[in-house]
Amino acid sequence: MLKTILDNKEEYQPGLSIDCVIFGFHDNQLKVLLIKTKYSDKWALPGGFVPVNEDIDEAAVTVLHGRTGLKGIFLRQFSTFGAARRCSVDVSNSVLDFYGIPLDEGKWYASRFVTVGYYALVDFLQTVPQPEGNNEIVEWIDHNAVPELILDHRQILDKALETLRMELNLMPVGYNLLPEKFTIPELQKLYETILGRKLDRRNFLRKITAIGILTKLDEKKSNVAHKAPNLYSFDKEKYEEVVKNGLTQGW
Amino acid sequence: MLKTILDNKEEYQPGLSIDCVIFGFHDNQLKVLLIKTKYSDKWALPGGFVPVNEDIDEAAVTVLHGRTGLKGIFLRQFSTFGAARRCSVDVSNSVLDFYGIPLDEGKWYASRFVTVGYYALVDFLQTVPQPEGNNEIVEWIDHNAVPELILDHRQILDKALETLRMELNLMPVGYNLLPEKFTIPELQKLYETILGRKLDRRNFLRKITAIGILTKLDEKKSNVAHKAPNLYSFDKEKYEEVVKNGLTQGW
Repeated sequence: MLKTILDNKEEYQPGLSIDCVIFGFHDNQLKVLLIKTKYSDKWALPGGFVPVNEDIDEAAVTVLHGRTGLKGIFLRQFSTFGAARRCSVDVSNSVLDFYGIPLDEGKWYASRFVTVGYYALVDFLQTVPQPEGNNEIVEWIDHNAVPELILDHRQILDKALETLRMELNLMPVGYNLLPEKFTIPELQKLYETILGRKLDRRNFLRKITAIGILTKLDEKKSNVAHKAPNLYSFDKEKYEEVVKNGLTQGW
Repeated sequence: MLKTILDNKEEYQPGLSIDCVIFGFHDNQLKVLLIKTKYSDKWALPGGFVPVNEDIDEAAVTVLHGRTGLKGIFLRQFSTFGAARRCSVDVSNSVLDFYGIPLDEGKWYASRFVTVGYYALVDFLQTVPQPEGNNEIVEWIDHNAVPELILDHRQILDKALETLRMELNLMPVGYNLLPEKFTIPELQKLYETILGRKLDRRNFLRKITAIGILTKLDEKKSNVAHKAPNLYSFDKEKYEEVVKNGLTQGW
């Protein structure tokens, strides 16, 4: 893929790339979709470049669709990374190394690229991680066990998680990350996993109910030993309204 | 300035610019620093380019310092704008028009530039708006009376204000925007001006006090007819701590 782009470099915005931090939730773990090749011991965030005639947001959607097969999912630009030496060739141009491309074939890419970071929340079970070509593998990795990443990808990942945590104060999270029907303890576990800390059960119940995005179903969780907890689903319309307008709070 | 850059274009990151939304507070108005030239009826946000050997954040500090004379002020990257046609030459390259530069001298700039938006909160009274060269004027304009802007600068300004409003829920605001000593009604007025709506006096007092960043001074506001209100100042150390860690709230 990078090779194809290098062969058609005049069709791409110079000095600019996209990196996507793709989060999924499974087995009570917050997982991140990462890429590896046989050329490097390090892992990388899925990324891509921006065609000159395409919006940067569109290019991000393309990257996301390419690696997950998913469309129409929650994707948000969170920060742009442009340290002077984040990928200059005198430091070591790790993306060329990562894909085993010699420097003389990758001259276009051998300068500082500024990268726009996007994060996505996707449905783990519906995602089919898709390598681009035979050279790479794409895997879900627990965000607590992320191995060494190339360039400043660790910093990009950390900033994405920091943004997601901050945005929990501004909007609801859960749609796309949980199955269609879930229990309040499962939703609380998702919040705890993202925030990296325990929450008080009663406080959580009170606050999450107050948002008004949950529909209590006439169904209980099966396969549970003791008292079966109620199942809930998101009221999609209200959920989207709150995502759009923000949690009513503050001043 | 743009001319100098065009003459030394290989020293700048291709296809990338910086735009700064600089807010100040005066006479109960939220003001924005804007630029005008004799070549155009429209106004523009102060902006600049990124030297290849410089961090994008550093380049933003340079733009800010260049237009205000200020250093060490609150500056935050908030979004990157990269619509395919935001400034392509077939639409009309308004920045070249804006500075009266013919297209053949501005070829480097005659393609889509992606721009990284920063917003700054500055002390109105300490700011000395500084034009770059004789061709432009730099002025504070009430954000409610902003005239037509070039390119997508209106969208950039709106997004900056939206971000600032949202961040009022995450951090305190006021330092740099208010004089050193102020009254609670003055601080409330600042919040109301940013939010564009009235706030309940008692709620505001309760919430702002709870943050723990205010020092009540042993002084009253002079030149006030009736009951003189108390003066306050920010506890700089606590203020910065809250800016760093965020308002404790949420989950």
